[in-house]
Amino acid sequence: MGQETWAIGVDLGGTKVEVAAVDAGGNILQRLKQPTRAETGPDRIMAAIAGMVREVQDRGPKTPPAGVGVGVAGQIDAATGVVRFAPNLKWREVPCRDRLQADLSLPVVVTNDVRAAAWGEWRHGAGQGAQDLICLFIGTGIGGGVVSGGRMLAGCTNTAGELGHITTDINGPPCTCGHRGCLEALAGGWAIARRAREAVRDDPAAGKAFLQAAGLKEPVAPEDINARAVAAAARAQDPLARRLVDEVAWALIAGTVSLVNAFNPCRLILGGGVMQGLPELTGRIEAGIRGAALAAATENLEVLPAKLVGVAGVVGAATLAIRSFAP
Amino acid sequence: MGQETWAIGVDLGGTKVEVAAVDAGGNILQRLKQPTRAETGPDRIMAAIAGMVREVQDRGPKTPPAGVGVGVAGQIDAATGVVRFAPNLKWREVPCRDRLQADLSLPVVVTNDVRAAAWGEWRHGAGQGAQDLICLFIGTGIGGGVVSGGRMLAGCTNTAGELGHITTDINGPPCTCGHRGCLEALAGGWAIARRAREAVRDDPAAGKAFLQAAGLKEPVAPEDINARAVAAAARAQDPLARRLVDEVAWALIAGTVSLVNAFNPCRLILGGGVMQGLPELTGRIEAGIRGAALAAATENLEVLPAKLVGVAGVVGAATLAIRSFAP
Repeated sequence: MGQETWAIGVDLGGTKVEVAAVDAGGNILQRLKQPTRAETGPDRIMAAIAGMVREVQDRGPKTPPAGVGVGVAGQIDAATGVVRFAPNLKWREVPCRDRLQADLSLPVVVTNDVRAAAWGEWRHGAGQGAQDLICLFIGTGIGGGVVSGGRMLAGCTNTAGELGHITTDINGPPCTCGHRGCLEALAGGWAIARRAREAVRDDPAAGKAFLQAAGLKEPVAPEDINARAVAAAARAQDPLARRLVDEVAWALIAGTVSLVNAFNPCRLILGGGVMQGLPELTGRIEAGIRGAALAAATENLEVLPAKLVGVAGVVGAATLAIRSFAP
Repeated sequence: MGQETWAIGVDLGGTKVEVAAVDAGGNILQRLKQPTRAETGPDRIMAAIAGMVREVQDRGPKTPPAGVGVGVAGQIDAATGVVRFAPNLKWREVPCRDRLQADLSLPVVVTNDVRAAAWGEWRHGAGQGAQDLICLFIGTGIGGGVVSGGRMLAGCTNTAGELGHITTDINGPPCTCGHRGCLEALAGGWAIARRAREAVRDDPAAGKAFLQAAGLKEPVAPEDINARAVAAAARAQDPLARRLVDEVAWALIAGTVSLVNAFNPCRLILGGGVMQGLPELTGRIEAGIRGAALAAATENLEVLPAKLVGVAGVVGAATLAIRSFAP
């Protein structure tokens, strides 16, 4: 593929849509962002995406793009590009690929948004050159992408990489998935918020100090007590927040030990909002893995922070389009 | 490959060596078994294996075998065929492939014994035709092999598939690997035995009934209270044994839910001595997975018992040799 090869990446989440022109080196040439407005339904959202793609294309290189890659927060049929179920968008069986292809007269490939971000980190971020890696994104939820033997794993129904839903505490708290003790139910942003609200309620004196350390002013709404507040208070050395962070680190060590033993990656790449708020976690998780995973599974392991913070999704989706469609 | 294609499979464990002539259809044509006698050291053991291979070759088809596949209970360097570490054999850095090749004048491929068994189940057992599957062998220890997108996963240092060492109970009991709460430490044969001994000690009356139900006569040695005894007593409806089996089922459900969510297999194949002793577990695990794993990850999932009971290792090792060396 030539120097001038480029593609358009789309990152479609429940709250915002991002569209970017990305070259074969992973550089963002143009970028647009809009609220998703999920309530307007699939037709209007796809029309809005097509409009954003055209705008980015007009402003991008004069050569035609290789195609369009779309990462959607949902389950995708790999063969048809149909979004089978996207809970945050409230989409079911939406023929995303065919609709956009017809509208844009460009080839379109659709994948899961987290897997798109893993493509980005693999090809242009902390995963460059690796053949075996795991990208674990720890945000409000936890998800990931796994590359093994130089291939992104898809699985039987294209859902491989649901790494937030590995059972880490068989006696643990309920998860939004219906099961209990999932890694996400211990260390995802929503679970950290749940634990923080419980802790503030259970110990009002410590809770008051926590809220102050987090920089929250009275009256504090329950939704203000979230993972971001925990990270802020922990950075200010608040004891309650430190304890919560210790619990999160402990859970993430247990979960990543599972992943390292099962998949034997060369690199474990840690990204997402929780990691950004608590960068100390990378080193703690690495130390924990080295103490607890099988020696043979860790001898060549590197544990690294994600590099493409905030843009892994669009870069990865465009990278997938270049890989799928560039001559 | 022709109808008459065949190879020799070797299954080298800590207690016994099995060698078999296997054709391209996975049929065993000849078979030999001997104690390993690990105390005699690598040189003698490899000489004994070479002798067994020659004997099987002499009795096998008149056409030359495609090669020899060896499954070893240890960590294997895939590129060199060196057994890096095999704790049960007390081997370190043993050049297994090169030694056997020089001795036999046949091409040799060496792999991990559990992965060899997974090859057997994939190509000639319950995994035939599948492109995405997990073989989970629940014996004294727990291990597995994972096929994704039609390829057996190897990982960065060839240890992918250590599925017994996924953390399933973050607060759980110690594992032989040094970590705690591993699936193996909850549901492996040695862990079932540990729990049974504890339970018998903690409740002597229930323990006495358990020992009777298991068919054990006084005086009972601690090593008689093992997974086999639990299975026997559970089949006789002993309450203590039933409770232990419920705990094992619960742990196996939690662990397999992790595997199904992370890998999204089309088939989960369950084998090993614990499954043979408690065949009821297959259905219980399947029901548990359907209740607790992500719906999208299970919609095409089949949960099946292993088929090649007792011969998966030699069949798989020979299958790998045919795949590696047959024209």
